[in-house]
Amino acid sequence: MFYYNSKDWLLAIFRIPKADTLRPLIPTLIFIALYSWGIVYLEVNYLKLSENSDARNITIMHTLLGFAISMLLVFRTNTAYDRWWEGRKHWGSLVNNSRNLAIKLQVFLPVEDHGSRTFFKQVIPLYALALRRHLQKDSTMLQLDENPHPELPDFGHKVHVPNKVAESMIFKVHNLYKNKVISGDQLIVLNGEISSFTDICGACERIKNTPIPFSYSAFIKKFIFIYVATLPFGLALSMGYFTIPVTTFIFYVLASLELIAEEIEDPFGTDSNDLPMAKIAENIKGNVGEILG
Amino acid sequence: MFYYNSKDWLLAIFRIPKADTLRPLIPTLIFIALYSWGIVYLEVNYLKLSENSDARNITIMHTLLGFAISMLLVFRTNTAYDRWWEGRKHWGSLVNNSRNLAIKLQVFLPVEDHGSRTFFKQVIPLYALALRRHLQKDSTMLQLDENPHPELPDFGHKVHVPNKVAESMIFKVHNLYKNKVISGDQLIVLNGEISSFTDICGACERIKNTPIPFSYSAFIKKFIFIYVATLPFGLALSMGYFTIPVTTFIFYVLASLELIAEEIEDPFGTDSNDLPMAKIAENIKGNVGEILG
Amino acid sequence: MFYYNSKDWLLAIFRIPKADTLRPLIPTLIFIALYSWGIVYLEVNYLKLSENSDARNITIMHTLLGFAISMLLVFRTNTAYDRWWEGRKHWGSLVNNSRNLAIKLQVFLPVEDHGSRTFFKQVIPLYALALRRHLQKDSTMLQLDENPHPELPDFGHKVHVPNKVAESMIFKVHNLYKNKVISGDQLIVLNGEISSFTDICGACERIKNTPIPFSYSAFIKKFIFIYVATLPFGLALSMGYFTIPVTTFIFYVLASLELIAEEIEDPFGTDSNDLPMAKIAENIKGNVGEILG
Amino acid sequence: MFYYNSKDWLLAIFRIPKADTLRPLIPTLIFIALYSWGIVYLEVNYLKLSENSDARNITIMHTLLGFAISMLLVFRTNTAYDRWWEGRKHWGSLVNNSRNLAIKLQVFLPVEDHGSRTFFKQVIPLYALALRRHLQKDSTMLQLDENPHPELPDFGHKVHVPNKVAESMIFKVHNLYKNKVISGDQLIVLNGEISSFTDICGACERIKNTPIPFSYSAFIKKFIFIYVATLPFGLALSMGYFTIPVTTFIFYVLASLELIAEEIEDPFGTDSNDLPMAKIAENIKGNVGEILG
Amino acid sequence: MFYYNSKDWLLAIFRIPKADTLRPLIPTLIFIALYSWGIVYLEVNYLKLSENSDARNITIMHTLLGFAISMLLVFRTNTAYDRWWEGRKHWGSLVNNSRNLAIKLQVFLPVEDHGSRTFFKQVIPLYALALRRHLQKDSTMLQLDENPHPELPDFGHKVHVPNKVAESMIFKVHNLYKNKVISGDQLIVLNGEISSFTDICGACERIKNTPIPFSYSAFIKKFIFIYVATLPFGLALSMGYFTIPVTTFIFYVLASLELIAEEIEDPFGTDSNDLPMAKIAENIKGNVGEILG
Repeated sequence: MFYYNSKDWLLAIFRIPKADTLRPLIPTLIFIALYSWGIVYLEVNYLKLSENSDARNITIMHTLLGFAISMLLVFRTNTAYDRWWEGRKHWGSLVNNSRNLAIKLQVFLPVEDHGSRTFFKQVIPLYALALRRHLQKDSTMLQLDENPHPELPDFGHKVHVPNKVAESMIFKVHNLYKNKVISGDQLIVLNGEISSFTDICGACERIKNTPIPFSYSAFIKKFIFIYVATLPFGLALSMGYFTIPVTTFIFYVLASLELIAEEIEDPFGTDSNDLPMAKIAENIKGNVGEILG
Repeated sequence: MFYYNSKDWLLAIFRIPKADTLRPLIPTLIFIALYSWGIVYLEVNYLKLSENSDARNITIMHTLLGFAISMLLVFRTNTAYDRWWEGRKHWGSLVNNSRNLAIKLQVFLPVEDHGSRTFFKQVIPLYALALRRHLQKDSTMLQLDENPHPELPDFGHKVHVPNKVAESMIFKVHNLYKNKVISGDQLIVLNGEISSFTDICGACERIKNTPIPFSYSAFIKKFIFIYVATLPFGLALSMGYFTIPVTTFIFYVLASLELIAEEIEDPFGTDSNDLPMAKIAENIKGNVGEILG
Repeated sequence: MFYYNSKDWLLAIFRIPKADTLRPLIPTLIFIALYSWGIVYLEVNYLKLSENSDARNITIMHTLLGFAISMLLVFRTNTAYDRWWEGRKHWGSLVNNSRNLAIKLQVFLPVEDHGSRTFFKQVIPLYALALRRHLQKDSTMLQLDENPHPELPDFGHKVHVPNKVAESMIFKVHNLYKNKVISGDQLIVLNGEISSFTDICGACERIKNTPIPFSYSAFIKKFIFIYVATLPFGLALSMGYFTIPVTTFIFYVLASLELIAEEIEDPFGTDSNDLPMAKIAENIKGNVGEILG
Repeated sequence: MFYYNSKDWLLAIFRIPKADTLRPLIPTLIFIALYSWGIVYLEVNYLKLSENSDARNITIMHTLLGFAISMLLVFRTNTAYDRWWEGRKHWGSLVNNSRNLAIKLQVFLPVEDHGSRTFFKQVIPLYALALRRHLQKDSTMLQLDENPHPELPDFGHKVHVPNKVAESMIFKVHNLYKNKVISGDQLIVLNGEISSFTDICGACERIKNTPIPFSYSAFIKKFIFIYVATLPFGLALSMGYFTIPVTTFIFYVLASLELIAEEIEDPFGTDSNDLPMAKIAENIKGNVGEILG
Repeated sequence: MFYYNSKDWLLAIFRIPKADTLRPLIPTLIFIALYSWGIVYLEVNYLKLSENSDARNITIMHTLLGFAISMLLVFRTNTAYDRWWEGRKHWGSLVNNSRNLAIKLQVFLPVEDHGSRTFFKQVIPLYALALRRHLQKDSTMLQLDENPHPELPDFGHKVHVPNKVAESMIFKVHNLYKNKVISGDQLIVLNGEISSFTDICGACERIKNTPIPFSYSAFIKKFIFIYVATLPFGLALSMGYFTIPVTTFIFYVLASLELIAEEIEDPFGTDSNDLPMAKIAENIKGNVGEILG
């Protein structure tokens, strides 16, 4: 992720950085332009359809459905944004819980217990790192897929690393309790933070391995495709060669909305818009180190 | 469920897998096409209505209501998606709580207590399996129906299996407490996870046995039906035989949205878009086995 | 409530069960049809307005506002649905908490304590029954009304039955604690379930006694009324006698959305779409009986 | 607040009670009608613009923006409704927590401790009364204003009454704990209810002293103003004198939505649509009295 | 922030205070007006395009997309508002938790322990002040940026002040527990408030350092730019010189929505619409001082 100044309009309008949807669309936009040119040429120059041809009124369909497709795509983008923001919230909670746990342990542990301090100073930030690696693995993404994945040798067999790390923390805390280093009341006070680690992991896995239902996603793409493919038929007779930029621009808008949705609905990848998990893990390391240092 | 690459447009547009809404719609689409053809033939070739006939302006109605129907369907689909996603969240919590419970028990139980470990290693994953079977039974779906169901011999009589499994876990945990294997503080720390099982079960049952209100659902279908059935009357005079693909496509869009909503609003069935409960239960088994192993 | 198969389109489109919005609307629809006929007759046959009359363009207003009214009604319906679904969630929690409480008590109570078991076996399901009766009384609905209600003799005086039942449960549990039948840790573990009963009751009362603000609700009805009443003036000149079915259908759509909203915004009545509270209470009785049996 | 039957359409359409938005709008509606008349007279009778004048097409702008303004206002109203409903929820929680606290105390306190019972019987309902008075004071509303308020002598100086009441309750409970009248487990069980009082107060203060951002609110009003003021210029040439009722009605719809939003976004005032806090406080008094009586 | 009377329409429409979006837009509005004038002059006076030119129908595109852009912007503004309101909620919780903590400590601490009282009287309000300063620093905003920031000398190195303050509070509370000034039950009762401080800090940091995804934000700006830039081409032929105010007004509406969103999506800055954190911190100081005084 890179932080941008949302008030800088010139940059947003004229620069096309790696994170922009325009880039991957360029080849398709050229194709759409050529396709529109073909349709216009066919209707206007070859078939010489009159202005009163029935074909002109095909645009009525695009008006009737223009609303449905816009709405569908805006909702789609918002659902994707909600997933992205939910992912960000979980990583925010990871920061908070790591900090809180560190602060509490710093206070609970006897001043001279350097061993436990060093242990937690290493293990708490380790969780974030392990979670990040876990979420970026293909086997996590395909966890719920019904097909076999022979291409992934570790599919379904490998150890669940974040679980292991969480387990070691819980183990340590409960040992401290058993050895009466921390009291029962303190154990209860620590419970919220400790249980939260696996909760966060599970929630992130859910976002990762469950895209929106296939039938929904496929329908939107089919809808965009047919909508744009039929657009020049109606427009050619009212706009002539203006049809070419118009169709291209309409496709750009519709496809961009879908592309943005696709990109942000999985916030745990390595795209430019994905969450800066490495950076957050680093911050956790800094915070915990400072607290338990 | 099968995991798909949401960035693969060609597959989404041109392949029509089992999970696609296009398949079940094909017969109806053919019927709509024939029906539109009939109307166009009637108006244009048989009655020979002029272009200025009042009938042409019926399209005004479709414009005025086009907005309402699109919006209604997009909201409908989103409500259904929310239910689907809520169901997914509950099964995600089931994973988290199963993991957390296993991790805590692994730490709390004395090293030599193999009996209890084996017990929980079997019973925790069993809950997910029992819940899955419970949610797929007809008697669960019809639990709140006001009509009698003589065709279901076990309707209203059978034992509630997930409850039984939860009960045995709670029973075991509290026995450990009574026998002072785990302390009162530890009991409190375990309480959240243990109570959550029946909460998850209840929430899933709610989604399963309460579809959206009948009057709402029936109204949407009536609306689509009348909207599409009257469409060719107005379009025939402005578009001629183009009315046939246009009406068919508009019906395809409206009906697809409704079909997708119907499919995903009950996420606990056996459709292709339904939640992979078997897979999740398997994962729980794997996780718990690894932790308590 | 009756469970319906949401995939059965024929039933939804052609049958008009008691729960359908079409039934209560029929007289008004006939009136609207007659009214439209009157306007068309007046403009077309009596005044013989030309096609270019200014009146024709009144339809511009309906286009400009068509969007606002559709959106308003769809939002209205969704707000009502949210209330309905919130009500359903609270009754779902009631099921969960009743189950959890029964399971925990079954485990906590000494095997030989048949008295307490019998007590809870009767009182837990009683709460659901009492709550149902409480929510269906007029005095609950009018609890926050600023007007006096001499027609309700018990208004503001009668005992709050669900409170009484909850109180007896809490009383019993705390007595068990005082008599050391259950420990302090167990008391804490039971607290969540026990407190939840009055929370659920309060939340249901809130939904029951607070409809959406009057000015909002009245505005929507006024808007529908004026919108539909002015519709034939503009349409008559472009559609002739087609105005009659068109106006009637547009009114059907708008009024249905409002009617559905009215019906489901109070989910605790006795309409066909209301929550099956009797059935849920029965299920609680079955579950609790099975657990504590 | 007065309870109304949402199914009574005649009342909603034809009666204009104090709570209706129509009343305060009447003078402005008359002004808009006169203004529209002026524009129509100017264009049609004075300037005698032809039907093909460019001015006629100004309506294109109103079509393009009609969507934006409707959507903005519907969202605005919904945001306001959410605040109103959130306020209602907090007062609902106040009822629940007051009840739960009373029930628990009734059980926890020794039978003979009449003093404490009397104390809570008075103080719990007092909180609701104090909160109501606190929320209706101008100094609460202006708490976060950056300007000085010399006209309010108590601004920023006065004692926070609800805080004082909450403090006295917490003080009493903890004294009971210190004097071992209630145990530590019971203290924990009471903590949720007791802490919730200040939480509810804070949440209500937030709704009260933070209207939606000024730039948002001012923009909506400017938008409505310019939209309606330019409307007759375009309509006059297509509708003639029909422009007058049409413009007036469009203004009525847009302004009503904004007015409703303004009225309900602060649910703690004394408007007819505001929350019946006095009534709720009275109910709390009744409930608590019945429980602790 | 300044409190405004949302019912004062004249102020909202005619005054243009610092917080209004109109101010920063004025230069761009002038530019758009000149640009539109240029296009109209070109098409109407220079090229003398006929009314039937294909160019006129470019407006079809603006109609088809007018819906998408309005919807996108309204959703954008609402997402921003949600962030603003979430920020407000967190600062509201800070007020509540500060109050609750102070009230509880006032009760728990022995009457004679002036030292601890003075400590908390200073440190609790200090947290709000430290959090405010922390959120307004550039290094907090850029925390997750992937680029280096040599211009910020303290970037990534400086001590996390709110953490330090929270740590000192937790340290103090647990010391009181260790010294048996407060009991274990009281420690548990204080835990919620104490842990919440870092949670609130983390949530505010999240809002601050994570703007909406760049690709989304950039797309909206590109869309507005192209939409408005192409608008005069189509309008010039139907509206003549009316195109100039119309294009300018449409741009004003679209850009205002985006500007408002930009301004409120980060509620922790120093804009007029940002949260009055200084004021809130002051109120916390007042409340805590009154309680612990």
